[in-house]
This record gives sequence, structure tokens and C-alpha cells, in this order.
Amino acid sequence: MKLWQKNTTSTKEVEQFTIGRDPEFDIVLAPFDVLGSLAHATMLESIGLLTEEELATLKKGLREIYAEIEAGTFKIDPGVEDVHSQVEFLLTERFGDVGKKLHSGRSRNDQVAVDLKLYYRSEIQSVLEATKSLFDLLIKLAEKHKNDLMPGYTHTQLAMPSSFGLWFGSLAEALAEDLELWQAAYNLADKNPLGSAAGYGSSFPLNRTMTTQLLGFKEMHYNVINAQNNRGKTEKVIAFAMAGLAGTLNRLAADTIIFMNQHFGFVKFPDNLTTGSSIMPHKKNPDVFELIRAKANQIQSGPQNLMMQMTNTTTGYHRDLQLLKETTFPDFEKLKDCLQITQFMLEHIEIKSGLLEDKFYKHLFSVEEVNRLVLEGTPFRDAYKQVGLAIENDDFAPLHTVNHSHEGSIGQLCLEEIKQKMDTALAKFDFENIASSYQKLLEE
Amino acid sequence: MKLWQKNTTSTKEVEQFTIGRDPEFDIVLAPFDVLGSLAHATMLESIGLLTEEELATLKKGLREIYAEIEAGTFKIDPGVEDVHSQVEFLLTERFGDVGKKLHSGRSRNDQVAVDLKLYYRSEIQSVLEATKSLFDLLIKLAEKHKNDLMPGYTHTQLAMPSSFGLWFGSLAEALAEDLELWQAAYNLADKNPLGSAAGYGSSFPLNRTMTTQLLGFKEMHYNVINAQNNRGKTEKVIAFAMAGLAGTLNRLAADTIIFMNQHFGFVKFPDNLTTGSSIMPHKKNPDVFELIRAKANQIQSGPQNLMMQMTNTTTGYHRDLQLLKETTFPDFEKLKDCLQITQFMLEHIEIKSGLLEDKFYKHLFSVEEVNRLVLEGTPFRDAYKQVGLAIENDDFAPLHTVNHSHEGSIGQLCLEEIKQKMDTALAKFDFENIASSYQKLLEE
Amino acid sequence: MKLWQKNTTSTKEVEQFTIGRDPEFDIVLAPFDVLGSLAHATMLESIGLLTEEELATLKKGLREIYAEIEAGTFKIDPGVEDVHSQVEFLLTERFGDVGKKLHSGRSRNDQVAVDLKLYYRSEIQSVLEATKSLFDLLIKLAEKHKNDLMPGYTHTQLAMPSSFGLWFGSLAEALAEDLELWQAAYNLADKNPLGSAAGYGSSFPLNRTMTTQLLGFKEMHYNVINAQNNRGKTEKVIAFAMAGLAGTLNRLAADTIIFMNQHFGFVKFPDNLTTGSSIMPHKKNPDVFELIRAKANQIQSGPQNLMMQMTNTTTGYHRDLQLLKETTFPDFEKLKDCLQITQFMLEHIEIKSGLLEDKFYKHLFSVEEVNRLVLEGTPFRDAYKQVGLAIENDDFAPLHTVNHSHEGSIGQLCLEEIKQKMDTALAKFDFENIASSYQKLLEE
Amino acid sequence: MKLWQKNTTSTKEVEQFTIGRDPEFDIVLAPFDVLGSLAHATMLESIGLLTEEELATLKKGLREIYAEIEAGTFKIDPGVEDVHSQVEFLLTERFGDVGKKLHSGRSRNDQVAVDLKLYYRSEIQSVLEATKSLFDLLIKLAEKHKNDLMPGYTHTQLAMPSSFGLWFGSLAEALAEDLELWQAAYNLADKNPLGSAAGYGSSFPLNRTMTTQLLGFKEMHYNVINAQNNRGKTEKVIAFAMAGLAGTLNRLAADTIIFMNQHFGFVKFPDNLTTGSSIMPHKKNPDVFELIRAKANQIQSGPQNLMMQMTNTTTGYHRDLQLLKETTFPDFEKLKDCLQITQFMLEHIEIKSGLLEDKFYKHLFSVEEVNRLVLEGTPFRDAYKQVGLAIENDDFAPLHTVNHSHEGSIGQLCLEEIKQKMDTALAKFDFENIASSYQKLLEE
Repeated sequence: MKLWQKNTTSTKEVEQFTIGRDPEFDIVLAPFDVLGSLAHATMLESIGLLTEEELATLKKGLREIYAEIEAGTFKIDPGVEDVHSQVEFLLTERFGDVGKKLHSGRSRNDQVAVDLKLYYRSEIQSVLEATKSLFDLLIKLAEKHKNDLMPGYTHTQLAMPSSFGLWFGSLAEALAEDLELWQAAYNLADKNPLGSAAGYGSSFPLNRTMTTQLLGFKEMHYNVINAQNNRGKTEKVIAFAMAGLAGTLNRLAADTIIFMNQHFGFVKFPDNLTTGSSIMPHKKNPDVFELIRAKANQIQSGPQNLMMQMTNTTTGYHRDLQLLKETTFPDFEKLKDCLQITQFMLEHIEIKSGLLEDKFYKHLFSVEEVNRLVLEGTPFRDAYKQVGLAIENDDFAPLHTVNHSHEGSIGQLCLEEIKQKMDTALAKFDFENIASSYQKLLEE
Repeated sequence: MKLWQKNTTSTKEVEQFTIGRDPEFDIVLAPFDVLGSLAHATMLESIGLLTEEELATLKKGLREIYAEIEAGTFKIDPGVEDVHSQVEFLLTERFGDVGKKLHSGRSRNDQVAVDLKLYYRSEIQSVLEATKSLFDLLIKLAEKHKNDLMPGYTHTQLAMPSSFGLWFGSLAEALAEDLELWQAAYNLADKNPLGSAAGYGSSFPLNRTMTTQLLGFKEMHYNVINAQNNRGKTEKVIAFAMAGLAGTLNRLAADTIIFMNQHFGFVKFPDNLTTGSSIMPHKKNPDVFELIRAKANQIQSGPQNLMMQMTNTTTGYHRDLQLLKETTFPDFEKLKDCLQITQFMLEHIEIKSGLLEDKFYKHLFSVEEVNRLVLEGTPFRDAYKQVGLAIENDDFAPLHTVNHSHEGSIGQLCLEEIKQKMDTALAKFDFENIASSYQKLLEE
Repeated sequence: MKLWQKNTTSTKEVEQFTIGRDPEFDIVLAPFDVLGSLAHATMLESIGLLTEEELATLKKGLREIYAEIEAGTFKIDPGVEDVHSQVEFLLTERFGDVGKKLHSGRSRNDQVAVDLKLYYRSEIQSVLEATKSLFDLLIKLAEKHKNDLMPGYTHTQLAMPSSFGLWFGSLAEALAEDLELWQAAYNLADKNPLGSAAGYGSSFPLNRTMTTQLLGFKEMHYNVINAQNNRGKTEKVIAFAMAGLAGTLNRLAADTIIFMNQHFGFVKFPDNLTTGSSIMPHKKNPDVFELIRAKANQIQSGPQNLMMQMTNTTTGYHRDLQLLKETTFPDFEKLKDCLQITQFMLEHIEIKSGLLEDKFYKHLFSVEEVNRLVLEGTPFRDAYKQVGLAIENDDFAPLHTVNHSHEGSIGQLCLEEIKQKMDTALAKFDFENIASSYQKLLEE
Repeated sequence: MKLWQKNTTSTKEVEQFTIGRDPEFDIVLAPFDVLGSLAHATMLESIGLLTEEELATLKKGLREIYAEIEAGTFKIDPGVEDVHSQVEFLLTERFGDVGKKLHSGRSRNDQVAVDLKLYYRSEIQSVLEATKSLFDLLIKLAEKHKNDLMPGYTHTQLAMPSSFGLWFGSLAEALAEDLELWQAAYNLADKNPLGSAAGYGSSFPLNRTMTTQLLGFKEMHYNVINAQNNRGKTEKVIAFAMAGLAGTLNRLAADTIIFMNQHFGFVKFPDNLTTGSSIMPHKKNPDVFELIRAKANQIQSGPQNLMMQMTNTTTGYHRDLQLLKETTFPDFEKLKDCLQITQFMLEHIEIKSGLLEDKFYKHLFSVEEVNRLVLEGTPFRDAYKQVGLAIENDDFAPLHTVNHSHEGSIGQLCLEEIKQKMDTALAKFDFENIASSYQKLLEE
């Protein structure tokens, strides 16, 4: 049963091909669909398209359905096309024709558009919470290991002294800076498309400002075509933000895998977090990090996937847009999984301390040694020659210590500043406002 | 002549392969390299690594070179490896050994990193200026054509009444919203990496806060590894911002191409802006828009290109990073070209007015007609049946007008609000601060 | 229960994260796993690592399991890691320790590698069958509509006369030519990796030539590292072949969508294959073709997705490889779905005949007219002027017919040659040989 | 001066934007344009559209131009649109109106299409020659180092014994197998589009079979729409082939970079092929391999770049196609450069022999040891326990040798079979036939 149907029934083949994975995704959208409908109904009453009683009935019905969704008892009946139809069907079944009035001044297009925006805001919040949690751990690890030196590489060659504190700290600051893209994604998700109808507006005197406020949106997509064109664009910007964060996780995983290699041997994990074999005791396979690395690559492929589907198409709704969910929805799950398992693993990481005391690493200190001489007054050129000569004569025995003191270096990790960077970034999101808007819709 | 050289000379084959297109890109970086050096020298003096006189000499020399760059007389001599070496070479040639002191506490890695950041900020400014200019034109066109109706499509099928005003306005608002990603890109470009040396900091007591201020950076990448890891990451976020804007241009171009098709015939351009043939007078080929569409796709491929080069690599500088310039630099040019030619073309666009008066379009008004009846008091169900019946009996003769009044619809384009959106977005960039910082470096 | 396990148990979190979607994919691999084991066991007996009786037992057991798979009664028990373990577990449960002997001289790595190769060969066969079927329909449509003229476009502008026969024929030949990539994919899939063990071979005197023949492989990956490195590479080449074919489907769908647009109105489909609305009778939404277009784009994103996961990694197995299945397996399904629904739709396509008789299209014939005059003896220059003048004076009334006669033109579609091209391409695949190899393994 | 021009002149802005990088690419196409014209003219004479004398004149003129191109004296005059116009202009200037007759029955579209096909065939030949040359070196290195053991890794963990011979051999076989995709690319490039005119054929009685033979094409694209649609598709398949080969180079480079890392220390290169510093004697930076890795990634991004430009567009020429050259042309250069420098580097590679004699690697031999016991008669289970116990008690002292004997293993590299694989693959290309066709066009 479909609302758009003429007297013909679409064939089974077409039905099956076009429905795709929507049932799976629609169930996720259900609570947001109800919230959108609560706001829409409230607005309809305010412009005289619903009576006060009708609104009261719809509110009651929608809140019941919301409770059922929360309780896990809501489902989309077989043969019902999508979540929107299911909600409307339940309302009509329970309260009669008033259920159908909910659709006035609204199209399936802007209804799903607003559902998606609410879902994205919610997912972004979850991602940021997991990110913050991982960030806190990284800061803790950086603090804990600030005095544990390790080698730093350039060109995959041993280059300079580094420290575990510096490495953990770099990942923490990276996460904080990844929030810039999430800010962009959030700001786009936080714009109300409701009222754009099928992408060209409505002849009903809708009050879009009202639904914008009711749903806790910071702003609306004013232009209705632009509102419609943001299907796809919103997903693209979210995919960028995911790809940014995934890039950091990919780097973290790639580093860890090489640090676990036996030639390096810098970090290890308890046996029950790695895989191995009793006759290959040398092996502690970093499966989890390999999968984080790979999943991060899948996520980093998201933008291209979405852009391929969008590009070269013209203004206006295309059914192609339905399939974007197949990228965005699973990628959100993947990203959250990766954040959580990364945190879980790092909670158990063990560091090899005293690494650089080994003579193997002495050449790492050659630049330090030159600089030390310069700071003591030797002209650079002479210092350089002196160190070069010592090395050439195999007579080079530097102190295996570093005295870095500037901002962001081994001796001054600036963790407070980095925490500040994260806090400032997080403060720009206003999830509390959204929560209180929803509460009003559900309770007042 | 290379600074890192031992007594061996790298072979011609290796030299040629590794230098690649750098000379072409380095010349673009030259002014920024001088600015970075001015800040670095000033800081070195403040921590006692240069005397007051040495600083004065270096300032004089660097400002001379800056003037030569501005005058177009600066070039990278054959056999000199890169712009950094050329500047150092000129300083040494003109002022002696003090030229070499400039390199204290700095590595080629953070030197190029800071050059790139300054270049990116500058390019972002240019892109935003061109975007704003195109935006202003679109607003003007939207205002001018607010009463010119045109069809709106869904599924590439005639669907609803739309207007040229609505279409132009949608593109304007899209541009304004594209600035979210540019904000993210700018914020990452606007972080100082100088002082990170080869990615692991320095044993010199550098004052990174000072260079951050001198170069007009809003903030620094505190952690030095993170500073280094931002080579590639900064480019990636910029590529996202470019891809976002390119997406809007692609849409604009795709729409225009189809609107120029003879079956549609909605817009046209003067003959000297299209191509054709005297025996095919029906043809007005939209070459410019086809190339905008295609270039936008090249730009939209940038993120994937960069991510392929970055992914799965470990912390620390890799020579791979050199090649990112081959994507980012030309894409900035391409994007600016596209913005400018789009504006140039739209300045000459001609609209077909009175389009929807044709009976061909009457079914576009069926939803309007139902809504009109509803607003007049007919229950929706009856209104729907009445219109459906009239259509079935070929008796449907709707008014070919629309009465959309809500925010963002044909009757209320909200151009002021959209302008406000653009202005608010632009206000977050602080290019004036950068300009005044540079002025101080060059003049005080 | 895992074979590699030491006395520690991997934690629930790690288990869940690492297992991913493998159960879903492993069930698909089950029959191929049994076939691979049958060949491996046969070979083990030939080199003395199994007795004749042991082989007989294993064959019996494996064939039983194969029958259970075919009957749909085989499943992977909860807690069993993968299909390989399940098969081994069943064998051991039913026949005792001989079940474990099957693993001699084989690693999980080459076991899954060979399973995948067999699966890919089978999927390629299915894709080619669906392609051939669609091809046959296109040839039939081309023949049927060879005299139905339609406009041909360049620059999305009306340009020249074309025909539906020419259009259908172009898609048919495109499919035939798409087989080149499938040949490459098939040739890579048709190379035996069994015997490469964990990627570095085995100290057992395996007879890889024998398993190559038993499994109907044309050839082996000789070098064992190369055999291992083909995990990922095989998938990449398959993804290229899929992307090639998807490109043709994308073009077919994009054309059809625009041809269904009301301004064009060239083709239509029965109401039950499109979507619409009783008050928008003008709309016949091409949802199916929009989804084909979009799915084709998802498939065309496959190569990048896989390359992102593979690139910059080093020789040897990485757990990352597990995730490639998440792209390849669903994309095979998607591609087959698209081929089948395309065929289903085209079986119902209706063509508007007599299209070019309309005066609207007269300028399409201007080049024809010039050429006609030239062939009648008028010098080109004069002919061109004459036609140009007639057009300028609005005095141009060409014949609305074409007399194209050369190979591949409207008048000579070369459908036989195109069929020959398809047949020649198909003849290079030797699926019969595979079928008979399998039969021997299962029955002799 | 443009052939399609009406009396209006396109503006400077449009001209500049649309011409793009074509002059740079057109000069590369020049010789192929002349060859295409020689074939076309010969055919025109055969169907009576040129007289015998006219053909003789054109042949003479075209061969003169070809000689000028070979001599490097040919150039495209300022203001001349493209290479096709330049050739026609020269002919007309030198021989009068006959020069213009060359364009009969041909459009710019099929002219450039055939030029590109000829260019691609030529470039493919160059790539294959460079590939074969690198292949030969790898085979030589494999043979030379067949007894030099090295560790084999799985999960980036030490796993099994491997050998340099095995590693080099794996790369050789990979190259041989990469030719499958080149076969697909070549077969598509080797199809004649000439005669398709603007994509819809011609009313002249062209003989396409004749030009197919004259230009040494194996076959034609029969259907003229399909011929046109192969602009883009041919490039896509070529990009796949490039990406395949680039994948192998990426792997080779990634391996080498890690093998040069000091912890591994498996391979090294002369000082003048790496970069370093006299105070960091530990560093031998693998810049060349890092750039090969990165360029291989750029090349691997080619397919996506091209598909973004092509997807969702409809049948018929679009100006977008012009820009594909910006990807394909430079990527051919890049790929050839990478192949050549890889060969140059590997000619100087030095291997560390006796690697596995170090006790550090003893656990690599645990599986060997178990298998050895099994082959000597110990049941697997007991052998496994025995080895496991020895390892646990730190009492494990295996022989540091391997006795792999099966096909493709350390002890039997199958280099002859791999060479055979390469030779068989190469034999499918028929470059000699092309060369002799060209010779006839230029001399008979």
C-alpha cells in the first residue's frame, strides 16, 4: 500500500529492487520521524490546518509510538513501504482520519530529509563522545609516558629522539583538530529542511521558523531548492568529517602495527588481545589494529562513493539519493566501533621503557649533540665538524638524553593547551539545546 | 648543491626523478618562505641565537628578496634544489655567513610546512573573494527573476512550479553554506607548525608562541609530531572544502546544460559565449559549462587522490608528501578559474520568461490546485478526488500561478537572510589580521 | 575454539570486532571450501601424507558436507570461528582425527585464497550469463527498432539524426566489449594459490600442479609470495571489471531517464513499472533506472575502496584483507541485480515512433542535406552555403530521412558482427572445464 | 580561426578557459593525426570523394608534415585551435583547397578519437617494453639471490623463512600477471572509431573496414554511437591497467622502504642513490622509493578521477571529455618514469646475505621443525608438542635452513615458468603489425 499509487500495482520485481535495504535503515530513523511529525503537527495547528483537538490527538498518538520505539516494540509491518507510512498507518488505525492530516504541507521528501538531519545530529553526538573519551585516554597516556623516550623516524629511517608522551600527545591533538570538520558537518546537519516539501515549497502558509525552533535547529535551509539539494550534500560533508577522523585512526593503527613488529618491539598488548600460536611464540598479531586500519580506509572511501552517486545530476530529488544511506549509516557504526575498540586496546597498551639507552640508537643524538655544543658557545660549523668527525672515527658517545624545552616538544608537551583546544572545539556544539527541544516536544 | 649532502653526488637520474614539478611550485611559495624566515629570524634573536646586528642584516636581506619576488625578478637558479636553498644562497652571497645562521632551530620540514600554511591561507582568501563575488551576482539574479516561473523537477520529471528566482537563490545559499568547510580548512591552515623542526622538535629554546603571533596565526599545532603529521592532513581538509564548493559548481553547470537543451530552452547565452555552426543553427553548445562540470569533477577527485597517498603510512615525514602539491596547487587554480568563468557567464545569462503559461505545463499545478481547494475549505480527500477527476476527464484548467508565501518559497525568497548567512560565515575569517602581521614583518 | 589459540582466550570485545561480517560471507564460501579440501586431500594422499583409507574417509565426509550445503542444512555453529573450522570440526566429529590431517601442508591463508578464487570464478560465470541475456535482448530491440529514427545529441544539444536501433545496438556492443575486462579478471581468478601456505610455501613436498588440475585451474600462481599478494589484487581486477560493466549500465540508465522526461518523451514503460500519482498524471518516475544508475555508481566506487585498503602495505598477509569481502561480495549481488532488472525493464520498453517527422527536428538534417548535395555533385563549399542560406531565410525544408549505409551506421547496424564479437569474447571462458573438474572431485 | 565559427568571435575569456592544456597534449597527438588523415584520405579516394591526384597531393603533404613532426619542427601556430586545424591549415596553405577536402566524412570527434587510439597503442607499447625490461632484471635478481634467505612476515610479524629470490620472483610474476589488464586496455585501444563522425555516422558511403586495415586496427567499434561512447571508456580501461601495474610498483616500493629501515637492514643502495647527512650516518633515505610509492598512488587514483568525470552523463559527445587527457597523458609519463627509475635502482640493490643465521630469527623455523619431524614419521600432534615444549623451555635450536621443494617455493622458484607466463602474455600484442601498417601509409 503506497500513497502515491494509482490503480496499478508495481510488480514484485520492481518492488524488491527499489525497496533495497530501506527497512533496515528506516527502523533507525523511527524516533526522529516521530519527533519531526510532532513539530510539524504543532506548526500545522498554529496556522489553522489542524484544530486544537486534532493536534492533541496526534501528540498523544505520536508520543505513544515514540514510547513503543523506545521500548523496542515498534516495527514496520510487512507490506508497509517505509517508516513514514507505518507511523501514519498506526495513527490512522488508532485515531482515524486525523492521522492522514499529518501529511498536509509536507512531502515524503522533506519528511525524510528532516528525519535524516535529526539522526545525523544524534550520531555526531555519539561520535564526539567516543572521540572525547579516547582523547582523554591519550592525554593520560601522554602524561604517564612523558619521560619514556623512543625513536622518531623520518623517511621510515631512524632520525631523532622522540618520546611515547609525544606520540600519544600527537594523536590527542589530532583528535581535537579533527573536530573542525565535525563542526562543519554538524552545522550543515543542524539546518532545518522541513517545509521544502518536494523541493519547491508549498502553497500552504507554513511557519518554517516555528518548526526550526521546535526541533532545536540552529537555523534553516531557507531556500527550498537548496533544502532539497542538501540531501547528498549533508551526507558528503559528514563523510568528509568521518574521513578526517578515520585518517587519525588509520595513522594510530599503522604506527601501532609497526611498533609491535619484533624488530621494533616498542609496545605490546596482553595475549588475549592479540592472536598467536604456541609454536610461533614470536608472533603477537595485531589483528585489531589491522582491522582498524582497514575500516578507517573503508570510511575514507566514503566521500568518493557519495560523490560518484551525486555528481553530474541536476537540481531536484532523484531516487539515487536513497542509496546514500548504504554508505552513511554503516559508516557511522564502523566509526564508533573503531573509536571504542581503539580505546579498549590502548587501555591495555604496554610500553617498553628505556628504549634509547641502547647503543643501537646513539646516532639519533647527533643533532642534539651539535645543538648542545652550539648552545655552549661553539660555532655551528665547528660543532658540526666535531660531531661528524667523532662519528666517522666511531668515537661518538653522546648523552642519550634530550633537553627539549619549547612548546610542544618532548620536555613541554602542552597537554593543558591541547585539552583546552578540545574543550573549545566541543563547546561549539549545543547538544543540550537539542535535548531540551525534544523533551518539550515529547512532554509539553 | 644540497645542505644534507655528503661527499657523494646523487646521480642525474635520481635528481631528475626526485625534483619533479617542485621548481614550478616553489616559485609560488617564495614570498611565504621569506615571511616565514623573517619571523623565524626575529624569534632567533629574541632567544639569543642571533645578535641584534645579524637580525638587522637578515631582515634587510629578506625584505630585498621579498621585493624582488614582488617585482618578478626572483628566480631559482639552475642546480639550486629549492626555494629555501635559493633564499639562503642569496643571503649568503650578499651578506656572508649570517645567511646560514637562519637555519638554526629549523628543519626543511617545518620550513616548508609553514610556507604551505601561509600559501593556503592566501589561496583560501582568493577563493572566498571569488565565491563572494559569484554569490552577489546570484542574489542579484534571484531578485531580478523572482517572478519568472519555471518548472521544478523530481526524478527528472516535471513536478511542481518553481522559479528562476528560486533556482538562483538556491545556488546562492549553497555557496554560503559551502563556507562551513572552508572554515574548517582555514582553521587548520591557520595553525603554526614552525618550531616542529623535522617533526620531533629542537633542543634550542625556541619561542613558538612568538612566531605564531608574528605570522598572524590564530594558534599553533602544539605537539611537534602533530605539526608534522599535518602535512597531508591540512591538504586533505582543503581538498574537502574544494570538493564541497566544486559540488555546487557541478550542480550549477549540470542544470544550465540541461536548461540550454532545445527541448527545455529555459536559458541562453550570447553567441560569442557558446559554440555552434552556421548550418546547425539549432546548436548553442554549452562548452564552458561542460568544462566547469568536468573541472568540478576533477576537483572532487582531489580528496581521494590525497588520501591514497597518505593512508597506511606511519608517523613522520615521508618524501611522498612532496607530491601532494601536484594536486593541491593546480586545484586551487582550477577552482578559481571555474568561479570566475561561472560569474562571467552568468553575467550574460538570458532567461525565457512566461514559460509556465504554456498549456504543456498545466499538470504542474495539480498539487497547487488541491491545496487551494483545501485552503478554501474543501476537505483534502474531496479536493484530491475533484482534481484527479478533472485531470482524468481532460477537464483540468488550473490557474498557472502560485501563491507560495512561506520562508524560502517562490513568494518569499529570503534573500536578506541568505545574505546574512554569507556575511556571518565570512566574518569568521580574519584576513585583515594576517595582512597587518605581514606588514609588520616587512616594514617594522 | 580456534586452532591458533594459546591458553588465553581473546576477549569478547576483540572477538566481536574481529569477526565482523565473516559469518555472512563464509556461508557463501562453504561449497568452495569443500571442493578445495577434496583437491588438497587427494594431493596429500599422492605424496604419502594421507593413506588411501584416510583419503577415502575424507572424501566421503567432504562429499556429505557438500550435499548438506547444497541442501541448505549446513551452518556454522555459534562459537566456531569460520567455515574452515566448521568443516574440520564436522569431519573430526564424524570420523575422528583424520579430520585434522586435512590441514597438513595448508594454511588458513591459502585455504581461504583458493575458496575465494573458486567463488569468484562462479560469480563471474553468473555475471556473464546475465550479461549475455541482456545483450541478446538489446540485439533484438536494435533489430526491431532499426527504422525508428530519434535525435542524436552532442553537448546535450540536438545534433544529428540517430535511431533507436543505433542506440540499442551501441549498448549491445558496449556489453560485448566490457568482456575484455572480465577476461582479465577471470584469468586472474583462474590461477591456483593453493600450496602457498601462509605465503611462503611449505616444507612438505606438495604437488601444486596436481591441485591446479583437480580444481580446473588454467594455471597457478607459481611464486608463493605472489600467490599471497593476489589476495586483494584479484579483488581489485574484479572490481575493475565490475566498474566497466557498471559504467555501461550507468550510461543506459542515464539515457533512459532523460528519454523518459516529458520534454523528450522518447520511451515509456507500463504504469506498474514506474511510480506516479493520480493527480500528477504527467509523472512517470523512472525509479528503477535511477537506482540502477546509483548502484552502478556504488559499484564504480569499488576499485577505489579496495585500493585504499591495499595501498602502501607490504608483502605478506594482513588482517586488513578480510574486509575486502565487504566490498566484493555485495557488489557481485548488486551487479547481477542490476543486470536482471535492466533486462526486465527493457522487455517492457515502448518506443515513440515517427519522432523525427516533427518539424521541430528539421535542423537535425542540415548536415545530411549538405552531404546529399555533395554526393549529387555540388562542391562542398557551395552546398554548405546553399543550406546555410536556406536555414537563414527560414526556407529550409529537408527530407526527414537518412541514407547512412556504412558499417555501424543507421542503415547498417552490423548486428551480426556485434554478436560475433560477443561470441568470440565468451568463447575464451572455459566454464565447462571447471564444471567437469568439480564433478570429478565430487563423484569419482 | 575555427571551422565551426559563425560570424561571431568567442570572447577571450571563453577561449582561454576552453582551450586549457590542449596545446600541450595536441603536440603529442600530431604524428597520429597525420597517420589517421593518411588512412582517411586513402579511403576517401577509394569511394570517389577524392580524385587520384588529390590523394597524391594530400599524401605528399601529410608525409611532409609527418617528417616535420619527427624532426621537431612542427608546431601549432598561435591562434590556431588545435593540431587538426594546424594540419589542415598547413595543407591548405601549401596545396590549396584540396586541404579542406580531407575533412569530408569526418568530424572533429572521430578524428580526435582515432588520434587517441593510435597514441594509446603507442604508449602501451612503451609501457610494456619498460615492464619487460624490469621483469628481466627481477628474474635475474631472483636467480642470483635464490639462496639468500630472509624473513617472511604475516601481520607485519616475523612468521616464516622466505628468501630474496622468492621476493624478487614474486614481483616478476606480478608484472607478468599485470599484463592481463593491459591486454584488455590494448584490445579496446585497438578498435577503430574512424567513420563514426560526430557519433552518429555519416551519409557518405565510407569504407570503415578499409581504414581499420590501413591503420593496423584489429577490429572496429562497429556501432558509431558505441565508437563515440568509447571516448572515456577507453581511458578508463587504460587507467585500470595503469592502476594494476602501479599497484605492483607500490608494493615493491613499500617493501623496499621497510627493508631499508635500520631495524630491518635487509637491502641497501649506493650513497649517491639515497639521501643522507654526514652527522646522521645512520640515515639512508629512500626518497626514490617513497616517490615511486606516491606516484603509484597518484596513478591508482586515475580510475576514480576519470569515472567521476564520465558518470551519470548521457550518450553523445560532451566537452567534458577533453579533460580526460589531463589525467591519462601525464599518468603515462609517470608510469614510464616509475618503471625506469625502479629498474635503475634495482640494478644497484645490495642484499644482506646470511640474515637468518642470527639467533634472533630462530622462531621462524618452528613450523619447519614440526614439519621435518612429521616427514620423519613423528605424528603431527607429537611433533607439535615437542617443538612447543622446546620453545617454552627456551631449548629450541632449530636448523636455520629450509627444504622447500614444491612449485613456486624457496627451493623451486619456477623462474622459467614465470618467464613463460610473461612471454605468452606479450605474444598477444601485435605491435609489429601496427608498425608495418604505418610504414605502408608513410611510404607506399
